[in-house]
Amino acid sequence: MSFSADVVTLFPELFPGPLGASVIGRGLGEGRWSLRATQLRGFATDRHRTVDDTPAGGGAGMVLKPDILAAAIDAVSPADDPRPRLLMSPRGVPLTQARAHALALGPGAVIVCGRFEGVDQRVVEARQLEEISIGDYVLAGGEVAAMVLLEAVVRLIPGVLGAAESHAEESFEDGMLEYPQYTRPQTFEDREIPAILISGDHGKIAKWRRAQSEALTRTRRPDLLKK
Amino acid sequence: MSFSADVVTLFPELFPGPLGASVIGRGLGEGRWSLRATQLRGFATDRHRTVDDTPAGGGAGMVLKPDILAAAIDAVSPADDPRPRLLMSPRGVPLTQARAHALALGPGAVIVCGRFEGVDQRVVEARQLEEISIGDYVLAGGEVAAMVLLEAVVRLIPGVLGAAESHAEESFEDGMLEYPQYTRPQTFEDREIPAILISGDHGKIAKWRRAQSEALTRTRRPDLLKK
Repeated sequence: MSFSADVVTLFPELFPGPLGASVIGRGLGEGRWSLRATQLRGFATDRHRTVDDTPAGGGAGMVLKPDILAAAIDAVSPADDPRPRLLMSPRGVPLTQARAHALALGPGAVIVCGRFEGVDQRVVEARQLEEISIGDYVLAGGEVAAMVLLEAVVRLIPGVLGAAESHAEESFEDGMLEYPQYTRPQTFEDREIPAILISGDHGKIAKWRRAQSEALTRTRRPDLLKK
Repeated sequence: MSFSADVVTLFPELFPGPLGASVIGRGLGEGRWSLRATQLRGFATDRHRTVDDTPAGGGAGMVLKPDILAAAIDAVSPADDPRPRLLMSPRGVPLTQARAHALALGPGAVIVCGRFEGVDQRVVEARQLEEISIGDYVLAGGEVAAMVLLEAVVRLIPGVLGAAESHAEESFEDGMLEYPQYTRPQTFEDREIPAILISGDHGKIAKWRRAQSEALTRTRRPDLLKK
């Protein structure tokens, strides 16, 4: 039983898009995960296929209608669906690497992509949508955010990354940013690879990398060290 | 002079992709911003078109070679290019809405998409690449991250969003998460729109929304209130 992703969106034609490339797309082709994008507009009930309306209480933008969105969610995710239902939203809890790991171990995810000014709060509550944010900025819609979430999760599904592409030493895996990397050529524009990395002394290399990680994290992301 | 984006990537065919849709794509079509994706592999110098090599000092994965990446950057961004050169990387400074605003006011951006284990640190220094992160998780590559950054920035370029799609009351614009939204129908599965929103009392509505924003931010993102 592989990871099953359902995406509810006004732009189903954007999927898989970038998720069809690289190791993520290879994993899709190999059946390590599956993806279905459903057109929200298909659940509209009037002849204009309306999915949104003006905000109650006034204000800019349009709000996705609760009845239409609920119908779309119900069509792809029955009440006993074990998968979490996620709403991509800047109001949400921030996505973390730990959450990506947890999702990768699970049965999949139902992902609702917002557009316009937002989604009617009642459907969020009635369908237990968990609002999740990929960062502290605002997008035009949830589609690219859904791609980010799926890419972060899918690469952690066993077998998607090859053995040579381990993620044990990546940023966030130990609460720190990753150390700097170098490769050939030995000299690039008068800049040398740090001598310690070509010393062959694995103990010293590990210690140097750890110190580099700590120094970078302290300078750039002291908030990570506090956690 | 419109916002000019250059992306250096191993997957130029993924662009514009999602950035060709919605208001972002409309802005591209109208010339409010421009996008060029350049294939990094075109700057490889051997017959296998090698762009990466094993990490100095050992470890998993592959590292993008500094000489090849520098050649690609130099081809799209001369030394006097006023645009910031950004490297999408989980090691980077987190992207914020404030930074998106600042970028939207500028001439554009040169965006390098990493892949594999990372990028040789010497090209980061020699080409003054500014590492920027879209969130505390790891992706398979920088492409979808570049799309996130561009979508967040482009929607803030004047004229890209219509007047009806103002972003004055969005999440992060005042350091808080946005209040909940509601729209018709008045009753959805026995849930009503909060009475205050249909009271017509704009003062009370504004006060209620502010209180909702504050309560949600305090519960879900107390870190935002500290800033």
